[in-house]
Amino acid sequence: MKKIKGSITSPKGFTATGITCGIKKSGKKDLAIIYSEIPCSAAAVFTTNKFKAPPIIVSEKQMRSGVIQAIVANSGNANAATGKQGITDAWEMVDVAAKALKVLKANVVVTSTGIIGKLLPMEKIVPGINRAVNNLSKKGGLDAAHAILTTDKIEKEITLKVGKYTISGIAKGSGMICPNMATMHAFITTDAKIDSALLKKLLKQAVDVSFNMLSVDNCMSTSDCVIAMANGMSGAEVTGHKSQEEFKKALDHICIHLAKEIARDGEGATKLIEAKVVNAKSISDARDAAKMIISSDLFKAAIFGKDLNWGRLVGALGASKALFDQNKVDVFAEGIQIVADGGELDVSRSQAKKIFKMKNIIFRVDLKAGKHSAEAWGCDLSYDYVKINARYHT
Amino acid sequence: MKKIKGSITSPKGFTATGITCGIKKSGKKDLAIIYSEIPCSAAAVFTTNKFKAPPIIVSEKQMRSGVIQAIVANSGNANAATGKQGITDAWEMVDVAAKALKVLKANVVVTSTGIIGKLLPMEKIVPGINRAVNNLSKKGGLDAAHAILTTDKIEKEITLKVGKYTISGIAKGSGMICPNMATMHAFITTDAKIDSALLKKLLKQAVDVSFNMLSVDNCMSTSDCVIAMANGMSGAEVTGHKSQEEFKKALDHICIHLAKEIARDGEGATKLIEAKVVNAKSISDARDAAKMIISSDLFKAAIFGKDLNWGRLVGALGASKALFDQNKVDVFAEGIQIVADGGELDVSRSQAKKIFKMKNIIFRVDLKAGKHSAEAWGCDLSYDYVKINARYHT
Repeated sequence: MKKIKGSITSPKGFTATGITCGIKKSGKKDLAIIYSEIPCSAAAVFTTNKFKAPPIIVSEKQMRSGVIQAIVANSGNANAATGKQGITDAWEMVDVAAKALKVLKANVVVTSTGIIGKLLPMEKIVPGINRAVNNLSKKGGLDAAHAILTTDKIEKEITLKVGKYTISGIAKGSGMICPNMATMHAFITTDAKIDSALLKKLLKQAVDVSFNMLSVDNCMSTSDCVIAMANGMSGAEVTGHKSQEEFKKALDHICIHLAKEIARDGEGATKLIEAKVVNAKSISDARDAAKMIISSDLFKAAIFGKDLNWGRLVGALGASKALFDQNKVDVFAEGIQIVADGGELDVSRSQAKKIFKMKNIIFRVDLKAGKHSAEAWGCDLSYDYVKINARYHT
Repeated sequence: MKKIKGSITSPKGFTATGITCGIKKSGKKDLAIIYSEIPCSAAAVFTTNKFKAPPIIVSEKQMRSGVIQAIVANSGNANAATGKQGITDAWEMVDVAAKALKVLKANVVVTSTGIIGKLLPMEKIVPGINRAVNNLSKKGGLDAAHAILTTDKIEKEITLKVGKYTISGIAKGSGMICPNMATMHAFITTDAKIDSALLKKLLKQAVDVSFNMLSVDNCMSTSDCVIAMANGMSGAEVTGHKSQEEFKKALDHICIHLAKEIARDGEGATKLIEAKVVNAKSISDARDAAKMIISSDLFKAAIFGKDLNWGRLVGALGASKALFDQNKVDVFAEGIQIVADGGELDVSRSQAKKIFKMKNIIFRVDLKAGKHSAEAWGCDLSYDYVKINARYHT
């Protein structure tokens, strides 16, 4: 497994594009298409929010066959809480794209991200899709990565070479912290040959250790989705234990990379916070404890204030479902022990300064209760988070 | 049931005091004692945080008998994450108070609130307890309410007259939002005669609809506790259905009042947010939905920004465990409907202005899924929340 310079069009047979169709007032790119020459084994994971956006409802149906050939994704408008018209509009996007691409309607999925509660400007999107289809190319990967962004500061992309095949992913979002914008989206392409049921299983596992361990503001979106497409065109087949492990490792790596990029780009964030919980009694204990730490507003505000406030960290830990003896817990920040057996250790000013120089601070928590571990990613809570989310008016 | 001007010493047989013993550098009151002439039926509810502060561990043991006669409460230092010495110190507070008060050691409980991870200054607390005992009086109720505060801006108190008996409560705290301070504490006194098992049952029910429906920042403290003492000295006995209902109503009223006061006094808060969820499928659905709404950082920041951002409200609702049809949900703000059948309604600027004039904004959410309802209380998320919690250094 090797990281290479590339994009979601690096795997064989994929083309993409990102164009401006006019949804965003800023004139920035707002419509992306990712397309495979041949139908793909595909898998997806969608938000569990009970307020599901229409594109999610439509794409969940489309994914049932485990085969897709194209993703049409717009930004600037989430087509969420838009009722029956929203469903009609999502299906129209599918229809228009299928005709223009000359693929089966059943093989197109759609996603939307942006403002909630407003109908899509279909008069812009329909011609936009036709134009985008004409624009598809091998060079369009970065444009697609740009066109799915909303308030993100940077595009999020990673490409890996694994033996004979390539696997690549892009993502957008920062939890649901964007002003009234729903959404975290991630799209993954590969030219590996892999059965859709196996892809689904591995994608679910990858999402559990990556995007599901990510929180910017504890606010679950109505439109989250991760979609993976595998067209098999490299000829390399993922079967048997060894090749599955290899593929799983690459898929986990991609999802974790994108999740960390989202946390790093969280609105107002100045630090990426990584919580590693080790020696937990169960995997769910480890995950819950790690997520509670990176989700604590109090702890996040302390990190913004460059304060090693371990009391807030153990308070969050104690509120988790994890079982442990409070008199045994050790905590390390960037390798420097700050809590021993549940109590304070003196940390020198110079050590604290060293820790807060990092843009990415790793907290390691040893529960001494078992053998399971988990990692979670978040960011600090700054004035800018409040500013961005209080100043925006619907 | 009638609200009267009074304090926790209004019920017959109770005296109290609040003094400065020197824990707080500010010189503000930091030690309170609440005392009953005779032993009381008592009940308590403690934090479920797995990192429990020593006073909580000690007082849980003391409460097992269902009988107490005095509460000793200090502020400025939470005696939390202080290990074996913390336990020893908490027991010493019990011993010293029992001797000075001439009551059984088994009948004294202790609570501490303030900074985490520092040992109590026992050389100040021991003489302080002796001095406080000499200071106990009928007039000391308000002093006690002051002495339990940390960064609270106002003392929180309520007294009710119910037929022949009186019931009164004080509280401190703002969730766990105070800089490195643990804690929400509430103490309730009454001269009603009530069995401790019944008191416990009713207290648990009251806490479920009041303090457990409160969130300032989703951060569970290591030291939360609510303690109720009933000395029976009014002669009025709580037995039978009618008197139980009456007592329950008064106890609920007191706990809800104090919970709302804590939300209103939340660090940085400019608005009290009340979420009423009606017609939920089950009581736990109603409670979870109401709590998710008042816990959403995104929604809280919108309220600070005076924005009726219903998309964030329904996003939070959808992330709750509640079951409902997203196309049937109605939302009202201060009686003005803002969402109908899960979709947006046009709200005029003048209506929105009217809503945001309120210091206390009530959101009513109709799930149309059943017959259960619940209320939860929180506050907005402001620059000052971040400031207070980022600027403080341990």
